[in-house]
Amino acid sequence: MTMTVGILGASGYAGAELLRLLARHPHLEVAWAAGDRTAGQLLAERYPGLADAYGDLAFCTADEGLDKGADALFLALPHGDSAGGLAARATLAAGLAVDLSADFRLHDARAYPVWYGAPHPCPEELGAWPYGLPELHRDELAGAAKIAVGGCYPTAALLALAPLLAAGLVEPDGIVVDAKSGLTGAGRSLKDPYLYAQANENVTPYGVGAHRHTPEIEQELGRAAGRPVAVTFTPHLVPMTRGLLATCYATLASGAGGDAVAACHAAAYADEPFVDVLRPGAWPATRAVATTNRVQVAAALDRRTGRVVAAAAIDNLVKGAAGQAVQCANLALGLPETAGLDLVPPGP
Amino acid sequence: MTMTVGILGASGYAGAELLRLLARHPHLEVAWAAGDRTAGQLLAERYPGLADAYGDLAFCTADEGLDKGADALFLALPHGDSAGGLAARATLAAGLAVDLSADFRLHDARAYPVWYGAPHPCPEELGAWPYGLPELHRDELAGAAKIAVGGCYPTAALLALAPLLAAGLVEPDGIVVDAKSGLTGAGRSLKDPYLYAQANENVTPYGVGAHRHTPEIEQELGRAAGRPVAVTFTPHLVPMTRGLLATCYATLASGAGGDAVAACHAAAYADEPFVDVLRPGAWPATRAVATTNRVQVAAALDRRTGRVVAAAAIDNLVKGAAGQAVQCANLALGLPETAGLDLVPPGP
Amino acid sequence: MTMTVGILGASGYAGAELLRLLARHPHLEVAWAAGDRTAGQLLAERYPGLADAYGDLAFCTADEGLDKGADALFLALPHGDSAGGLAARATLAAGLAVDLSADFRLHDARAYPVWYGAPHPCPEELGAWPYGLPELHRDELAGAAKIAVGGCYPTAALLALAPLLAAGLVEPDGIVVDAKSGLTGAGRSLKDPYLYAQANENVTPYGVGAHRHTPEIEQELGRAAGRPVAVTFTPHLVPMTRGLLATCYATLASGAGGDAVAACHAAAYADEPFVDVLRPGAWPATRAVATTNRVQVAAALDRRTGRVVAAAAIDNLVKGAAGQAVQCANLALGLPETAGLDLVPPGP
Amino acid sequence: MTMTVGILGASGYAGAELLRLLARHPHLEVAWAAGDRTAGQLLAERYPGLADAYGDLAFCTADEGLDKGADALFLALPHGDSAGGLAARATLAAGLAVDLSADFRLHDARAYPVWYGAPHPCPEELGAWPYGLPELHRDELAGAAKIAVGGCYPTAALLALAPLLAAGLVEPDGIVVDAKSGLTGAGRSLKDPYLYAQANENVTPYGVGAHRHTPEIEQELGRAAGRPVAVTFTPHLVPMTRGLLATCYATLASGAGGDAVAACHAAAYADEPFVDVLRPGAWPATRAVATTNRVQVAAALDRRTGRVVAAAAIDNLVKGAAGQAVQCANLALGLPETAGLDLVPPGP
Repeated sequence: MTMTVGILGASGYAGAELLRLLARHPHLEVAWAAGDRTAGQLLAERYPGLADAYGDLAFCTADEGLDKGADALFLALPHGDSAGGLAARATLAAGLAVDLSADFRLHDARAYPVWYGAPHPCPEELGAWPYGLPELHRDELAGAAKIAVGGCYPTAALLALAPLLAAGLVEPDGIVVDAKSGLTGAGRSLKDPYLYAQANENVTPYGVGAHRHTPEIEQELGRAAGRPVAVTFTPHLVPMTRGLLATCYATLASGAGGDAVAACHAAAYADEPFVDVLRPGAWPATRAVATTNRVQVAAALDRRTGRVVAAAAIDNLVKGAAGQAVQCANLALGLPETAGLDLVPPGP
Repeated sequence: MTMTVGILGASGYAGAELLRLLARHPHLEVAWAAGDRTAGQLLAERYPGLADAYGDLAFCTADEGLDKGADALFLALPHGDSAGGLAARATLAAGLAVDLSADFRLHDARAYPVWYGAPHPCPEELGAWPYGLPELHRDELAGAAKIAVGGCYPTAALLALAPLLAAGLVEPDGIVVDAKSGLTGAGRSLKDPYLYAQANENVTPYGVGAHRHTPEIEQELGRAAGRPVAVTFTPHLVPMTRGLLATCYATLASGAGGDAVAACHAAAYADEPFVDVLRPGAWPATRAVATTNRVQVAAALDRRTGRVVAAAAIDNLVKGAAGQAVQCANLALGLPETAGLDLVPPGP
Repeated sequence: MTMTVGILGASGYAGAELLRLLARHPHLEVAWAAGDRTAGQLLAERYPGLADAYGDLAFCTADEGLDKGADALFLALPHGDSAGGLAARATLAAGLAVDLSADFRLHDARAYPVWYGAPHPCPEELGAWPYGLPELHRDELAGAAKIAVGGCYPTAALLALAPLLAAGLVEPDGIVVDAKSGLTGAGRSLKDPYLYAQANENVTPYGVGAHRHTPEIEQELGRAAGRPVAVTFTPHLVPMTRGLLATCYATLASGAGGDAVAACHAAAYADEPFVDVLRPGAWPATRAVATTNRVQVAAALDRRTGRVVAAAAIDNLVKGAAGQAVQCANLALGLPETAGLDLVPPGP
Repeated sequence: MTMTVGILGASGYAGAELLRLLARHPHLEVAWAAGDRTAGQLLAERYPGLADAYGDLAFCTADEGLDKGADALFLALPHGDSAGGLAARATLAAGLAVDLSADFRLHDARAYPVWYGAPHPCPEELGAWPYGLPELHRDELAGAAKIAVGGCYPTAALLALAPLLAAGLVEPDGIVVDAKSGLTGAGRSLKDPYLYAQANENVTPYGVGAHRHTPEIEQELGRAAGRPVAVTFTPHLVPMTRGLLATCYATLASGAGGDAVAACHAAAYADEPFVDVLRPGAWPATRAVATTNRVQVAAALDRRTGRVVAAAAIDNLVKGAAGQAVQCANLALGLPETAGLDLVPPGP
């Protein structure tokens, strides 16, 4: 069984990654790839490494793609474009719309303007797009017609922390998420800080206290905890192409013990096809999951301070974007969840 | 149909890459992986990214592996180990022995001591191992029982230059090969120049006029030209993990023209599954082939100087080592040549 | 006025950095440089970039150097060597001994075995070596005869946090220090994780809950707070040669406000020659201080969570080791504190 | 004695490097720094690492700077701006104009349109600007009022090859220059190939047979050889911030021998303050000269092929741009040639 796929925003990094993953997907086939800036250009020109996979397929415009339609549609667009109308058109043009942007991830219309500076253009849609993080919300994704794929930072932070909160092992107050991302996380934008000579040999925090992934982390941790959660979230850029590590800190709940902390991830993720719970003493490394949809997680109690350290490593473009989108689409379409995602990292 | 495979030297970079590629090979299955330094350790401990693929397989010793035998055997060992006896044992233990070292690549026993400083330990074997570069010697590899896989630098240099020499478009005299390799080309050896802080932000030539890949390049270019060829070969280390670019320079043959040069690669590689001949004006880039068995090639005449510039980019661990070994094994075993090698690069 | 200097451990990264800095120091002149592994070798052979500065000076052995003596002596040795006897010999051989190791940084003999697994070999010396962080302890360093230079991680963490604790703006409980260091922080040791191909494109925590810089941070923060402090400290390796960023998290003290937090660094560091307090909204970046003795600091209140984020960036080899050692020596010897340290970063 | 300096183009990488070097120059003081895009902004905002050196100096416009004038003026502008009129204005506004662009490097007005596609706007000026490479043309630079500083690639190629040609040790025909440069060589331009994620883990040639530094190399090698020289020049981008290596190949002249080749650089550069001639067997490495005005050179005969390999490593922003400009200015102004340039590399 083969279904057709359309991609909006195929000229960016997440779009390119969708093309890479779908090139080897056994059930999904790219029918068209839209990139307004690159319309008319061969995919193989922008992505020489995909020449073999896509032959003479050329980028089309979003309008051309939406006119064609597809069984499933991926939106890998800049902030605001989905909510600005393309998502609505996508849901008409395809049985499944998978949005990789943040436009529909928040469920509370009141949270949106706090972080985005303006009301949401279609607040009635908020909550109608299940949050696309299968390890937390698999049931909501099965058979869904629209999905808001979880962000890169939230995916790592949530996979590290949610089971601990759900099990009541850590306090919902005072959580810190310190995250480190490679440069593809910033997208293929021509901005000075993303130039090689600016980003190389540099580590720096950005968006301190103001990053838009913060409310997304809080919303989902709040669902895990069963009560509101506020986190201090600091993302950092580190000089590498791919990879994202979230190192998270939370206070041990009174009555909880180190053994329960150590055992929590293993229990929560026992049946998860993409999550590797590391043995005690080992900690996640981005290289071990690079180019794959896998996640490495670990957690331990710092007994001296009563603080739990939990960490997760992902590839920001795969489990943090395109891979997770495919995983969600597989669930929505009734395909095997791992279809097209049995990837082995090149630097083991 | 599934055949069993054994790997000697599985704890090095080429061995790890064989494990990565064979994890997704439809017809070959790793029965054992030997690494004397790592014997007893789980593969997943040394290669966390392969945990999913190899479960609880542990490294064995070479002796244990050779006692078990296999349908095919890959030798990814340091210089001298194959010729020192392991290759002989491997040919007894398996129907096919694929050697990734340089031990059996030279056919002329007289050339060996010039570059290696001592006579070859089993000169009678020289010439009995076809040179494992399918694009040049596919016929010799089909059904072979032993194969000496071409080296990383030679593979790139030969794919750039051999068709031009075979077509008589360039002079066999005065050829220069200037090559640039990432650090995995140096192996997983604990040497000071390979430390991150020594190799980063540095480019330097090494082995000038003395690199052991030189006679290998000359042997194979000589076969293409039908007469002896001497090349000036300078390898360089550049700060990246993977990737190898050979930029080659040769004098245009009298009577030859720029159009023939431009057309030569396209004709030579028209049916090759792994070679991408770039359009005029485009030049090979290592990122476009990273983690894959693909090759990018280009050539052009510098009309002002009458010199032909030809270049090839490969991933040194794949087409320059493990991928080419699998490609050779596929041919030897009668499998589809591309089996297990339909890889898409992560940074397109 | 010129004084003579001897260096023990001149073949490691901190030793090399001392050589670089002292090559341009107006008052200190390297009389000898000891490196047991490299004894007899020219400095210029190991450090071609220092050929111009050191001409035909060769490494000597520690014994040879100590026999010669000097006005001041820098010890840049592996853990344990100073306390094992070399420090005692150094204090006899020179009027000033500046130790870059951790051997004499802790003042409490009871803390030592907790982190180092064995009793301190000369506990009577603990407390006799002022902690070499001039911004906190300038008075103790003036005229001192022995100095234990602060570690790289502690220097960054303390410069970010100490003024906030001293001013009572943050709670001493629940402090988190999440730090990111380049590879030179690991020293010039031939270990697998420090190979280029292992460290590149990778971010990972290490020593979680167990890093030996933890008690040093706690000791000095405790002095600033006037009561014991326990911190959760997680160091990370990031793929760059130099640079260290500490991102620190602390709970706002009750009654304190965001404005006081924002103003605290500026007041504390108004007269400091090496500390740049960034304007509100800007955050430290390691490139801005690379190769210099400078520090960038910033702090802000995350009003939503009541948590203060404070960060500091240093060059781990300069302000985190050799530069700070020279700064301390300048103070001890009565030289201008900035002598030899007016460095401008290459990548502004 | 202090002279005032003005900089046009201070917001690019070469301009920033001039600011870095002049911050520590004993005789030259930056009076103004013009950057049209950044006019009004504090230098310290764009270059936090220079905050200490330049306090509250702000960028001005080119017009404002030229109105003020200065003792010496550096032009670090994009191609064409100098020849388009700014150079003429600069020579009126200052006693010395040092141009870092290629606009006045070629002396033959006929060569210009071949490489630049249009006639030179002021051909009468060609030849009036001595070529700013002190090691070759020190006499012409002493006391000069205008100087065209040599380009980065030419500087490395010429320092490797010119002495060999001048001594008649290599043939002027058939020379190949294969060069590798870090990303700052491409300038601080917002172009896709210069993004971190595009340039990292990639090596690729560019401008093959068409790079505008080619005629400059040929002009100067021709002067050394005393007859026209045509070279095949291929530049490559390698993933590092700074550094440039030129590996050059030339045919041994008949009658010449390997010993003369090995001795040639040592003789030519015996009195040069910035050139390190490496011992036989050692080869230039970009790290050894990073951030300094130094040059490492080496040459050897490949006896098997009769080809000479000569290489030079420089920092493209220092000896390849700003450092060489300061060296030239020192000569022109009668200052010590090394003033402000006694730099020690950070990674020795």
